[in-house]
Amino acid sequence: MRVLICGVDGYLGWSLAQYLVARDHDVSGCDNYSRRDWVAEMGSQSATPIGRMTERLEAFRENHGRNLMYRRGSTLDYNFLWNILREFEPEAIVHLAEQPSAPYSMIDVQHATYTQNNNIIGTLNLLYGMKEVCPEAHLVKLGTMGEYGTPNIDIPEGYFEIEYRGRKDHLPFPRQAGSWYHQSKVHDSNNVMMACRVWGLRSTDIMQGVVFGTRINEMGEDERLLSRFDFDQCFGTAINRFCSMAVIGHPLTPYGKGHQKRGFLPLRDSVQCLTIAVENPPEAGECRVFNQFEKVYDITELAWKVKRVAEKLGLSVEVRHTENPRAELEEHYYKPDHKHLLDLGYKPSHEMEAEMEIMIKDLMKYRNRILARADVLIPNVQWDGSRRKVHFLKG
Amino acid sequence: MRVLICGVDGYLGWSLAQYLVARDHDVSGCDNYSRRDWVAEMGSQSATPIGRMTERLEAFRENHGRNLMYRRGSTLDYNFLWNILREFEPEAIVHLAEQPSAPYSMIDVQHATYTQNNNIIGTLNLLYGMKEVCPEAHLVKLGTMGEYGTPNIDIPEGYFEIEYRGRKDHLPFPRQAGSWYHQSKVHDSNNVMMACRVWGLRSTDIMQGVVFGTRINEMGEDERLLSRFDFDQCFGTAINRFCSMAVIGHPLTPYGKGHQKRGFLPLRDSVQCLTIAVENPPEAGECRVFNQFEKVYDITELAWKVKRVAEKLGLSVEVRHTENPRAELEEHYYKPDHKHLLDLGYKPSHEMEAEMEIMIKDLMKYRNRILARADVLIPNVQWDGSRRKVHFLKG
Repeated sequence: MRVLICGVDGYLGWSLAQYLVARDHDVSGCDNYSRRDWVAEMGSQSATPIGRMTERLEAFRENHGRNLMYRRGSTLDYNFLWNILREFEPEAIVHLAEQPSAPYSMIDVQHATYTQNNNIIGTLNLLYGMKEVCPEAHLVKLGTMGEYGTPNIDIPEGYFEIEYRGRKDHLPFPRQAGSWYHQSKVHDSNNVMMACRVWGLRSTDIMQGVVFGTRINEMGEDERLLSRFDFDQCFGTAINRFCSMAVIGHPLTPYGKGHQKRGFLPLRDSVQCLTIAVENPPEAGECRVFNQFEKVYDITELAWKVKRVAEKLGLSVEVRHTENPRAELEEHYYKPDHKHLLDLGYKPSHEMEAEMEIMIKDLMKYRNRILARADVLIPNVQWDGSRRKVHFLKG
Repeated sequence: MRVLICGVDGYLGWSLAQYLVARDHDVSGCDNYSRRDWVAEMGSQSATPIGRMTERLEAFRENHGRNLMYRRGSTLDYNFLWNILREFEPEAIVHLAEQPSAPYSMIDVQHATYTQNNNIIGTLNLLYGMKEVCPEAHLVKLGTMGEYGTPNIDIPEGYFEIEYRGRKDHLPFPRQAGSWYHQSKVHDSNNVMMACRVWGLRSTDIMQGVVFGTRINEMGEDERLLSRFDFDQCFGTAINRFCSMAVIGHPLTPYGKGHQKRGFLPLRDSVQCLTIAVENPPEAGECRVFNQFEKVYDITELAWKVKRVAEKLGLSVEVRHTENPRAELEEHYYKPDHKHLLDLGYKPSHEMEAEMEIMIKDLMKYRNRILARADVLIPNVQWDGSRRKVHFLKG
């Protein structure tokens, strides 16, 4: 199948390209290197060394025996999008080209409006481009489980049957996102739903949990094939940050009481799931929603798992809670469905501690790169708009 | 009370300023004249003659004995917003500064992205400005009943108590908007809700029905105090268009079967309701939602009402259905609540035909201005992105 990945230079995009090509798909990609700029702006860098795109493409060709067709450009540039859709004629488009950080979007008005403009307008351009150039193609749109927030009822996959005052309807499940970034994904979901309804486009809207991991098997032993791995307050995700902290002897820092519950999945499961979506397109006009994660975990439970694995590998690690820079519930009900992907054949790895061990071993090689930027580990972006480093909590 | 109206040069803004000042409020306003530009772009003009802002402000002072404090600028310019919030120190901000047309947003990718950027980013700037400058102020945000779409169940005011799989929660009611414009309002609603939750701002989100009417009493007999009145396919609303058609002998044109049901209210009720919202602010942190309309009508029923009133005034009018340029249900369930405003003292006019009579008499004076632009009456903006004039339906 011809698959275009928007955001192919990113954490998921670069991994997915390799997974897809190993399964014999024709993969093309675009990017404008924004992620590199954002991480640099935060004073950080990827723990894994990331080459220039020309070097990455060369390593891709050498190892996978196929070209990754690549164009540099932005989803905000409609003519660019229109042209690559004409050139690559994708049957599926995996849209990963968004600003993905909640804290980054909460820094100030410039970062908030930048995030919403980049994500919403980029997606709207893509919808128009598809309508004009490839209306039969399948949009696999990366959203986030964070779109739902933490309601006090079960979370279905996108829609629910509801009875209200004696009448019934099948409606989108209410979204209650908690950052300008998460809101931008809600807005995207609403726009994508409308494009399917009004124009007959087909889409899978992926409500993805938090991804962790340094590698997928398809990367083999060539370091140039590794994906980026961020650990700073904005672009690092929970387990990735805990593992990075562990290898440099920094305390692991759940926020507040630390009983936030979220769905998590390893990088290898993420690319597996995205590929399942690509290989099983919905009908024209359908906008289906997948909740994409392996299992729900409590954040503090994960910190203790990382501590246990790290100590087995001879590292000395402590868990120390900090103030919570975010406005969020620290104890709450959380029960999201995740059946659609399992029904289509998703085989979860179910190897959390084994994955953590691989990660910590990988990261030990890059210990100095993390150590050099250790000051980006403690957050200072507060949800109230101030910029103040959080303190450790007593006890 | 000190009230700032963003979008004070528009249909609602100009009327509301006069209503508020007659009730002894201190009114300030801003605008960037976008509405004038959009209507000109559609090849149309206001049926009522609209002077330059300097002339309008002079007429305002002469008639109302008070200044309307005014600054020219855009909500997309954060520094402009920040400065007027500092200067006017509003206790309430009525945000009417959005691109308000569904068809305009459906023209093409440029108009779609322009609309969503203008509306979403403008509102996000305003939320940040309020947080920085006047966090105690009350945001009265104009949304639309169109945010809800036409679900097959009753529509509550913004939120509902729901039981799902044996658990309960109080959640935002699902939105299913049918144009990029309506979606932009949904996105705004979600952003405003979050700003109240995370920052403790207070807001009333107005889900307004379709407004009609040429005047409010406070405009008296000075023609310079009249508000603009649009009749083109994009910026004219149903009853306003039907009355404009009637005065030039053009057929009244319900779309398709014509049994779309919507909530409607006269201009005089709209300014009354907005003022009730302003004068009864919610608590800090609250984002309440008002469904603001007088009554639900069927579009074809309204066309026949206009025909009846026009014929009583000696005009000869026919009702002729056209193809529907929109993607929407033409027959559907529709039962929205509208209790909050009544509880706060809203007195509906309940004088639909009397209001139509006033309108038609007013518009007779401007018959030539409508006649000169009669070619903008039949829509050619189609929801599928094409640009083709609709045909009359047989029978």
